[in-house]
Amino acid sequence: MSLLTDLYQITMSQGYFRAGIHERLAAFHLFFRREPFGGGYAVAAGLDTAIEWLTSLRIDRAEIEYLSGLTGNDDRRLFSDAFLQLVADTRFTLDIDAMPEGTLAFSNEPLVRVVGPLWQCQWVETALLNMINFQTLIASQATRVCRAAGDQPVLEFGLRRAQGVDGGLSASRAAYIGGCAATSNVQAGMRFGVPVKGTHAHSWVMAFEDEPTAFNAYADAMPNNCIFLVDTYDTLAGVQHAIAVGQRLRAVGHEMVGIRLDSGDMTSLSQAARKLLDQAGFPDASIVASNDLDERKINQMQRAGAKIDVWGVGTSLVTAKDDPALGGVYKLAAIQDEHGQWQAKVKLSEQSVKCSNPGIQQVRRFEGGGKYVGDVIFSELLGPPDAVDQPEGGSSSQDLLRPIVRHGRRLGDPESLQTIRQRVQDSLSRLPEPHQRFDQPAAYPVRLEGRLSEQKQALIDHADDRSADAPDGLGPVER
Amino acid sequence: MSLLTDLYQITMSQGYFRAGIHERLAAFHLFFRREPFGGGYAVAAGLDTAIEWLTSLRIDRAEIEYLSGLTGNDDRRLFSDAFLQLVADTRFTLDIDAMPEGTLAFSNEPLVRVVGPLWQCQWVETALLNMINFQTLIASQATRVCRAAGDQPVLEFGLRRAQGVDGGLSASRAAYIGGCAATSNVQAGMRFGVPVKGTHAHSWVMAFEDEPTAFNAYADAMPNNCIFLVDTYDTLAGVQHAIAVGQRLRAVGHEMVGIRLDSGDMTSLSQAARKLLDQAGFPDASIVASNDLDERKINQMQRAGAKIDVWGVGTSLVTAKDDPALGGVYKLAAIQDEHGQWQAKVKLSEQSVKCSNPGIQQVRRFEGGGKYVGDVIFSELLGPPDAVDQPEGGSSSQDLLRPIVRHGRRLGDPESLQTIRQRVQDSLSRLPEPHQRFDQPAAYPVRLEGRLSEQKQALIDHADDRSADAPDGLGPVER
Repeated sequence: MSLLTDLYQITMSQGYFRAGIHERLAAFHLFFRREPFGGGYAVAAGLDTAIEWLTSLRIDRAEIEYLSGLTGNDDRRLFSDAFLQLVADTRFTLDIDAMPEGTLAFSNEPLVRVVGPLWQCQWVETALLNMINFQTLIASQATRVCRAAGDQPVLEFGLRRAQGVDGGLSASRAAYIGGCAATSNVQAGMRFGVPVKGTHAHSWVMAFEDEPTAFNAYADAMPNNCIFLVDTYDTLAGVQHAIAVGQRLRAVGHEMVGIRLDSGDMTSLSQAARKLLDQAGFPDASIVASNDLDERKINQMQRAGAKIDVWGVGTSLVTAKDDPALGGVYKLAAIQDEHGQWQAKVKLSEQSVKCSNPGIQQVRRFEGGGKYVGDVIFSELLGPPDAVDQPEGGSSSQDLLRPIVRHGRRLGDPESLQTIRQRVQDSLSRLPEPHQRFDQPAAYPVRLEGRLSEQKQALIDHADDRSADAPDGLGPVER
Repeated sequence: MSLLTDLYQITMSQGYFRAGIHERLAAFHLFFRREPFGGGYAVAAGLDTAIEWLTSLRIDRAEIEYLSGLTGNDDRRLFSDAFLQLVADTRFTLDIDAMPEGTLAFSNEPLVRVVGPLWQCQWVETALLNMINFQTLIASQATRVCRAAGDQPVLEFGLRRAQGVDGGLSASRAAYIGGCAATSNVQAGMRFGVPVKGTHAHSWVMAFEDEPTAFNAYADAMPNNCIFLVDTYDTLAGVQHAIAVGQRLRAVGHEMVGIRLDSGDMTSLSQAARKLLDQAGFPDASIVASNDLDERKINQMQRAGAKIDVWGVGTSLVTAKDDPALGGVYKLAAIQDEHGQWQAKVKLSEQSVKCSNPGIQQVRRFEGGGKYVGDVIFSELLGPPDAVDQPEGGSSSQDLLRPIVRHGRRLGDPESLQTIRQRVQDSLSRLPEPHQRFDQPAAYPVRLEGRLSEQKQALIDHADDRSADAPDGLGPVER
């Protein structure tokens, strides 16, 4: 999968090679400009997937052959043998510093910093963005759904409506990071160690003569995994059938786990079902709800007094339906000149807030009284923040980008999903409530360190020169 | 990837096995209930991906070991050795009939029909839905974007914001099926034979001292692939720099392909750029636009007189941003009883329009005067439509579900993407314009054959019996 990149990364790589600057060291940062879902934060995720891809990157013979067959507008080859030889012989030697997965990230903060030969930095851009954009999006969405569900578990059921195979697999991983209790996706269970859950579908009930026969058959087959889906024909009749089978199970030493509702007015159905279950002596039987749920519907049903214990969430979670792409970008922020001196760079924009930050960046997060109080982005080329730049109330701090890969090799073992999942919960407990609101959250304070801010402004002010300067004698152009 | 399924498919499979009905033949259909994007049709896609997965399905030792370690609520194993042995030894023997990729599909029509042993039908449900839901969604979206662009090519640039690796790869495949001219995704190019396109990014320009130097260096490196991205600093200055380099290129026998705009008011910028290019003797240089485009923005820019020749579309296309999941479902429609007789089945719903259709279904599409006039869904258990059921004006017809897999083996070779792509264009030329409108399209006429319609109603009427009948003496339940 070494060609999991945009063609222009490869044409640029050849361009740098021809210009003799391909080995110059460059620094790129991956960041987003707006928190997803109108929320106040994102949960960094996908790094391990990206690092696994990146550290095994080696362009093989078939890939080289494919590239050598590509042609330009004159039907002549796009890539030269000399360039392809460079590519084929290369072991990637990048250095990666990144926020550990599960860290809370805010707009304009680098989640990942890539430093290494210019052409290699370009080559990996698209795959890093793909993997980190998506998993960060889904982990963030999962924290919202889990917050809506409060203490009740959320199960991720999304594979069937996910955007492709990996849209399902990596969504299951990210949803678990964000706080989901389990997935229906067995492949994700096997591959990532996410707990798996599931009992039966409507087709089970339809495959038998009637619903009691179907429930009894399921109980015979899986006495230790009984959550009966009760809405195939008539929901409350279904609850009664589940209770009858639950009593049979109990007589032989098993306990029905619960029932599942998948249609209708689930608030009132859950109240009626709870009553029936309690009266019949099943106060511990869970009521699971599923059917196009999302954080807002869960919130509404909770407020309306739904008696639901477990939430199954699929499509809206794994496709992040309200905001299905995180707009993460990857921008050049510094490059060494011919003397090996770092030159800071900004990408301009008509809106100056959208201009990228220059330098080799780090994020320092300040904490006081057990809560995050603010972050400062600084450039390691200019130095860390002075006292004047530090947010008020901060008594301790940590730098969020940690060394992950050096010279193409991963440092240490990957973190377990449990560790990452725990980091999300710890971090959310430190993020003040106003930044966690679903709508109109307070903006978390992120500032640029003073010298970095000055450098950025100077680079913006001088950018016109870069446009108009014409070393080959073109002279200033008309506007 | 044999475990690419929901856990409940496997628990049900074991249940069928224990109940001794796992080998009974069943018929399931994959269909959707609502055309995506508020449009009037969908483009069937993803079949080849699904068939490739399905025909190579073989549950391996590591997968069996994983399953044997799963436990239920009493911490005892979920799956028995007897069941796992069945699973481990099985070559899947399903029969698949399906609409060829690129066929236009309408709500409630089966895109795929699966007939075979009940447990095998269940096992493959989730992966079939995943692959066909997503590619159908993206191929449909691509036809809309291409329609907005008219005769002008659309390039798919979505990998970096796609939902996971395969959310990018299979989106590139589906977008090409739907009419896109090329992708930026090199892996998709190599794997599926989709043409690839790309030149350079802002980082290229930023890596040099100034823009003219950057353009000159690119022209030196890739003289046959020059589309200059002109908005890094000042767009119209960038156009002038591109022209200067284009003149240099021409002097040495190469022709600049064009320029790319990626920010700002691209309608007026494209008009100004066109003027500059024409005046400078580059009337054939293309103007490519990119930057969060979708079918509506393309439409608006076209109407506003934008001078754009090529459209690069990313996020909104590969994530189907307006409607990011096709709600395809997979429903049991018939099952053999103990005597080998087919019993038709419906899945009820509170809304009778949402009840699924019974039987072993086929779709007959009628055509007259070179246009589609209507479809009839019929059951092969009941027979094809009589004259009375046929849409008016139909002079010929074809049955859309074709045999693809028999007894687990694919019949014939996969179709080429070119063939599929051509089918989309042919089909759209036969679909009357009112069904192709972006908003409020006329509903395409799809009816149920008469006997099938009667059977469905009878099954709905009798469904209450299935709920209340209680063979083990429970008796009718209270509501």
